[in-house]
Amino acid sequence: MRHELQAIVGIDHVRAPGAADLADATEWSGLRGRADAVVLPGSPEEVAAVVAWCYEHDVPITPRGGGTGWAGGAVPDGGVVLGLERLTRVRRVDPAWWRMEVDAGVTTATVARRAREEGLYYPVDPGAAESSHIGGNLATNAGGPHALKHGVTRSWAMGLDVVLAPGERVRLGGPVRKDVAGYDLVSLLVGSEGTLGVICGAWLRLVPAPEASSSIAVACESAKAAAAAMERALTCGIVPAALEYLDDGAVAAASAGAPLFVPPGGVLLLADVEGDPVQVARDHDTLREALEGGDGVLAVAEFAARTDRETLWRWRDGIGLAVIAQRGGKLSEDLAVPVDRLAEAIDETQVIGVRHGLDACSWGHAGDGNLHSTFLLDAADPAQRAKADAAAQDLFALARRLGGTVSGEHGIGRLKAGQLREQWAPAAVAAHEAVKRALDPKGLLNPGVKRP
Amino acid sequence: MRHELQAIVGIDHVRAPGAADLADATEWSGLRGRADAVVLPGSPEEVAAVVAWCYEHDVPITPRGGGTGWAGGAVPDGGVVLGLERLTRVRRVDPAWWRMEVDAGVTTATVARRAREEGLYYPVDPGAAESSHIGGNLATNAGGPHALKHGVTRSWAMGLDVVLAPGERVRLGGPVRKDVAGYDLVSLLVGSEGTLGVICGAWLRLVPAPEASSSIAVACESAKAAAAAMERALTCGIVPAALEYLDDGAVAAASAGAPLFVPPGGVLLLADVEGDPVQVARDHDTLREALEGGDGVLAVAEFAARTDRETLWRWRDGIGLAVIAQRGGKLSEDLAVPVDRLAEAIDETQVIGVRHGLDACSWGHAGDGNLHSTFLLDAADPAQRAKADAAAQDLFALARRLGGTVSGEHGIGRLKAGQLREQWAPAAVAAHEAVKRALDPKGLLNPGVKRP
Repeated sequence: MRHELQAIVGIDHVRAPGAADLADATEWSGLRGRADAVVLPGSPEEVAAVVAWCYEHDVPITPRGGGTGWAGGAVPDGGVVLGLERLTRVRRVDPAWWRMEVDAGVTTATVARRAREEGLYYPVDPGAAESSHIGGNLATNAGGPHALKHGVTRSWAMGLDVVLAPGERVRLGGPVRKDVAGYDLVSLLVGSEGTLGVICGAWLRLVPAPEASSSIAVACESAKAAAAAMERALTCGIVPAALEYLDDGAVAAASAGAPLFVPPGGVLLLADVEGDPVQVARDHDTLREALEGGDGVLAVAEFAARTDRETLWRWRDGIGLAVIAQRGGKLSEDLAVPVDRLAEAIDETQVIGVRHGLDACSWGHAGDGNLHSTFLLDAADPAQRAKADAAAQDLFALARRLGGTVSGEHGIGRLKAGQLREQWAPAAVAAHEAVKRALDPKGLLNPGVKRP
Repeated sequence: MRHELQAIVGIDHVRAPGAADLADATEWSGLRGRADAVVLPGSPEEVAAVVAWCYEHDVPITPRGGGTGWAGGAVPDGGVVLGLERLTRVRRVDPAWWRMEVDAGVTTATVARRAREEGLYYPVDPGAAESSHIGGNLATNAGGPHALKHGVTRSWAMGLDVVLAPGERVRLGGPVRKDVAGYDLVSLLVGSEGTLGVICGAWLRLVPAPEASSSIAVACESAKAAAAAMERALTCGIVPAALEYLDDGAVAAASAGAPLFVPPGGVLLLADVEGDPVQVARDHDTLREALEGGDGVLAVAEFAARTDRETLWRWRDGIGLAVIAQRGGKLSEDLAVPVDRLAEAIDETQVIGVRHGLDACSWGHAGDGNLHSTFLLDAADPAQRAKADAAAQDLFALARRLGGTVSGEHGIGRLKAGQLREQWAPAAVAAHEAVKRALDPKGLLNPGVKRP
């Protein structure tokens, strides 16, 4: 196998898998895969040739971006790991026309930085921006705090440069802001976790960068009080750019940099506003009044200066790692529920933890109803892992009971295989499976991932 | 057939097709279909039962909303017209949570009005809002002027209540703002023109309504001057809510209410800004300075008062009918091109008209690069229709040459059948067709529509 793949990508770009190729961010919950080879194509044409060779020889393909996923979607189960890390070119930036074309292996941070350099804004901000690839963001339809105002990755993808089975490179969409000529295969590929095609590049939409922004942190005595504050924020007439929450356990895990103290059972809310300076000042005041104007609000902190605000959001971005640092491991599920059920989901996460004898905490994208419900694990203790797996089933049932979904932004990956079948009607699951068979008849694209 | 369908939907809700059931807005270009019966189910369950009966008996199904489409997507070719007009319930409005659940047969105007009544905003504004149905907007992924800032219908659909072949009602998504559990079948169904399923209802996302808005009209001496003004507008740092254009022919067709005179060869730009009053005043001034600060700008008019602005946009909304009124008919294609190629597309539309001996004009969503390139027709003259069909082929070739698409918002329908094959690579067309076969194996859902 290696010789034939080396003939396609060059002798230096096929290697035996190392530990880092067989895991993603879920390694903290113990997931590790296996593979026969790692192949690193240097161009979309080489990606197509690798896929064609694999498809002809019935070799499974696991596409891999930055390896920062939280669902095991880049963890291989035999066959070839197809890494996109050599595709790192920013192909084109058209500042006047609010768009950029990039290779799949460009990091999320690079996309954001190049946009900023031109006075533009790529607002999607999933965590791990310095290591995650835009290709992986597209494959998982990544979200993040600012999805509240700006939407998830799908909202920003105008076109894809993608390799479809059995190894054909095609362009879907392009530098065009509207296109209904064919079925929306761009949206279908986005979020498909590498199971319908291999994304090699994309045309991204951008917007003029907001000139100013400012943030507010509010400590509330309970999830219920936080939900009430959030309702006031959502009905005060403005659109916050982000509206996040952290429960007391999540805040405690990163207490050193925490903006406010949160007592047991309490919840911290973080809100962000963006716009021109005058607008931001007004929105900030409106939002602060709304957030603090009710029962159960313990304290308010404001972050108007740019560096203070950046420090706050860096702290927020580090919560996942801070929680892992508590015990060496965690199992985290990214439920999304109707926003009006958020308080219930926060409280129930704690109840489920107690039921299974696990320390639980949660944080996430409050305005989108998207939680990261998490159990702390001692990575060296397999019994805890088993408990956490059982507790995760309760979380999935909770999401369904509240009318939500088992995944708001991480995807099904390997870890949630089988959950879609519990959530969707049989005919919808059949449609999901029919689409998979239609675009990957041999089932070689990331097999075992996003299985209903 | 009628008796069996009457057993499902009731004796009063199956009838012989009338002229109005066999055409849509394309009747001005001469398209008219045929059907065996019109069936009007009273509930999603009845829709499912009708689809199941048709699927079992190999009867084609043409779903029909308000019949305001511009591509013949609701023009039947035998079988059953499945009208959604009895599904008119606004199922639920949750103002605090920025969402609404509606039946497919609710008009676009009703959606917008109910949102406004709660201080919220449904910003998608395709034409014919009083008669078009939200189900049809979803089926075509309708756009409109304010898509520049707010995106097209797909951006606002969180969940669908849909009947899939062979007659199963399922829920995809729901009152949840983020969901990556399954493939994005919501986006796949949106824009599929009734060829993959029948949309019976939807959960729509809303946002707080902007308090203020104001508009600017700018007359430019040429398409090139208008494109330069547009570039200045897109690089002045603000995001206009809408940025439209009309060439001299389009303005002349509705000259009575026109905001400014546009000389031969000239182009009128219309820009809209939204926000809170202070923000709007600032953005308005910034945008006006940008628009007028260059060569070839002939005149500027401002519309700050609410009624003046509304009058302007009502005038804009009526352009399509005003153009038809010139000769009794038109053929109009909704090309979308990269925004930087807009001036070329405007000028080329004229050149193509001259080449085929037809009067041409165009208008559309400048900021999205989306034109309505139009030839005036005498409805009673079949020779003109033949000329226009030939000219349309030149328009499609133009869209491809400029790196654009043959349809930005109207869809392929019947009128553009076969065009996708010219635009996409064979493997992409194969994927489009494989998706169709996967979800409609018998090919009974709107056959003849959206064919590549």
